Amino acid sequence: MPSISKKGQHMPQSPIRKLVPYAEAAYKQGKTVYHLNIGQPDIKTPEIALDAVKVHSLEILAYTRSEGSDEYRNKIAAYYGQHDIHLTKENIIVTTGGSEALLFAFGSIMDTDDEIIIPEPFYANYNGFSTASGVNIIPVISKIEDNFALPPIEEFEKLITPKTKAILICNPGNPTGYLYSKEEIKKLAAIVKKHDLFLISDEVYREFVYDGATHYSIMQEESIAENAIMIDSVSKRYSMCGARIGCLVSKNKEVIATALKFAQARLSPPTLAQIASEAALQTPQSYFDDVIEEYVARRNTLISELEKIEGVKVAKPKGAFYCIVELPIKNSDAFAQWLLESFDVNGETIMVAPAAGFYSTPGVGLNQIRIAYVLNQESLKKAVHILKEALKVYKD
Amino acid sequence: MPSISKKGQHMPQSPIRKLVPYAEAAYKQGKTVYHLNIGQPDIKTPEIALDAVKVHSLEILAYTRSEGSDEYRNKIAAYYGQHDIHLTKENIIVTTGGSEALLFAFGSIMDTDDEIIIPEPFYANYNGFSTASGVNIIPVISKIEDNFALPPIEEFEKLITPKTKAILICNPGNPTGYLYSKEEIKKLAAIVKKHDLFLISDEVYREFVYDGATHYSIMQEESIAENAIMIDSVSKRYSMCGARIGCLVSKNKEVIATALKFAQARLSPPTLAQIASEAALQTPQSYFDDVIEEYVARRNTLISELEKIEGVKVAKPKGAFYCIVELPIKNSDAFAQWLLESFDVNGETIMVAPAAGFYSTPGVGLNQIRIAYVLNQESLKKAVHILKEALKVYKD
Repeated sequence: MPSISKKGQHMPQSPIRKLVPYAEAAYKQGKTVYHLNIGQPDIKTPEIALDAVKVHSLEILAYTRSEGSDEYRNKIAAYYGQHDIHLTKENIIVTTGGSEALLFAFGSIMDTDDEIIIPEPFYANYNGFSTASGVNIIPVISKIEDNFALPPIEEFEKLITPKTKAILICNPGNPTGYLYSKEEIKKLAAIVKKHDLFLISDEVYREFVYDGATHYSIMQEESIAENAIMIDSVSKRYSMCGARIGCLVSKNKEVIATALKFAQARLSPPTLAQIASEAALQTPQSYFDDVIEEYVARRNTLISELEKIEGVKVAKPKGAFYCIVELPIKNSDAFAQWLLESFDVNGETIMVAPAAGFYSTPGVGLNQIRIAYVLNQESLKKAVHILKEALKVYKD
Repeated sequence: MPSISKKGQHMPQSPIRKLVPYAEAAYKQGKTVYHLNIGQPDIKTPEIALDAVKVHSLEILAYTRSEGSDEYRNKIAAYYGQHDIHLTKENIIVTTGGSEALLFAFGSIMDTDDEIIIPEPFYANYNGFSTASGVNIIPVISKIEDNFALPPIEEFEKLITPKTKAILICNPGNPTGYLYSKEEIKKLAAIVKKHDLFLISDEVYREFVYDGATHYSIMQEESIAENAIMIDSVSKRYSMCGARIGCLVSKNKEVIATALKFAQARLSPPTLAQIASEAALQTPQSYFDDVIEEYVARRNTLISELEKIEGVKVAKPKGAFYCIVELPIKNSDAFAQWLLESFDVNGETIMVAPAAGFYSTPGVGLNQIRIAYVLNQESLKKAVHILKEALKVYKD
């Protein structure tokens, strides 16, 4: 029998996948499971986006341009213009989700065994994209005590080698909810400029910023116009994860020309989803205001409920809809499994994402979980109550 | 300025891309251009597929399962059952086009610097997927004199090294239109079995088979159940190239489990397109009968018109909707550019795909072009007339 690749063997599974069979077993037992583990928002997609595909008059569902249509890219550029990011369509390649934008970015700037520095904890699929691209992640630890702020810049500098090609951040962060300040972005800009590196910023949660804070994009930092690559997506912004439309943005013409070759090989991003995504750009501000208000209320409920539990530490998120929670336990993998297999409060339990999978350094984050606050407040309250009761009886 | 990757520098451009500026200049001059260069059919998409997305009642455009829904995969398995290929949904991963299925297959079975043997001429984007995956294509030449039949199996065997992981065929072939016989598939089966290799078969044109011939899939060859990986796509079958839905099929559980990890990293194939593709499976047989009749008529017209031109050699295609044509010229790149820039018959000219880009061996195919017969018969006649007139005056 022919053997699969080393790359394939090393491809990591998401931290949640291992739990899926236990969740399915819990359903079979008739348990209600509150899903604190997923990034699929329960927010409705703007009707204007869904309606656009209902009224289309296509006779042939044809390829679009590999980089997305001029019209759509012009509209994306105009959207960024409203956020003080000044671009033209030539700076934008439409991709099949933020995932593909990351793969194009990795392929365009890194070869086998090259290195990319990422503050951990980070979005777990960065591991998969790195493995698929044959590159190595070099983690810099950020700490719950610091609310997951940018680690001291000296910590990055210590890790730079001739193989280092880029630094990758997620801003605001999944799984931390941390929003980098303008000063932090400027520190990163200085170091990538000094060492001739790329700075990739995954800004898919850019609209989810709370408490009056302002998002500062790496694309606003003129000094690193040639170094900066932004990753974006419609998935969370318009609650249209299933569209699979994102984009890669850079003012570096060589990066765009190179990423375009990757885009051309796969022919075209999905056409129907581009119709929906182009229409989504007309979503009224009131939609976002309502969504932000809802997430802030959820976050406040979640954090205040969590803070009532003894021994629990939580970093208050300033953006996105995740937070990392430290629990008085030793191994959150085992705890998450136990919650599904062996625990319930009146037939109800919770599913959480063990945080170790968001760290690259082995053994870190074992006492942490990620909670996604994509449930309504009442469900969140119930879920935290279940967590509290569980911690009373759990032994590890 | 940070530098892009070697991989990015080596990513090839499609053979047609270089011509696009010349085509645009021709439009500006007011010329009519008959596009013999593209694989975007002019056939209408089945209404049942387009209507399915018009009547959807989604409120949230959510992720689907990474491997595609159970329902859709069950229906795909049933479709193959009608073609004497016996599968279950566990053998199928739904992908974002055949392109992604190829990337998942390459990643699952090959590491950096591994080798894959492909009969040339081959679909040009195999070059891009190989470069993106860091693997090397080892070509085996197939000849226009043999109608691009499978090269002698000894030619494959000569090229097998410890780095060889797979043989890749496209059946029926783009750009050759060649349909491999059952005997040829059995020869390939024997050699991959003997050397413990994978056999990847890109069968996206499986329905486009003419003159009463029957398509024999590698999935029908029970002896290589563990070696066989089939690539498929809805793009051409239902003229829905813009859907970006395909699948990877294998009875090898390890291959499926590995490809699934790649699929999970990118979360989900596009949801709207899956709705359309699932509905497309209900397309009545009459649709295919009409389409096949149309392609056969086009092919017959094209071939008989081409055969009237002195010095032109053409391999008669038995499937797909392409053919390779040998012309009495030295360099079809220059010829294709000249057709757009400097030639017309009453304001009309043609765009063709130079064939060198479909070969991996340098210097081969320079006097060949690929013609896609995706235009109606009248346009094809006019286009071949233009080619004939052009060859009368062209000097290289």
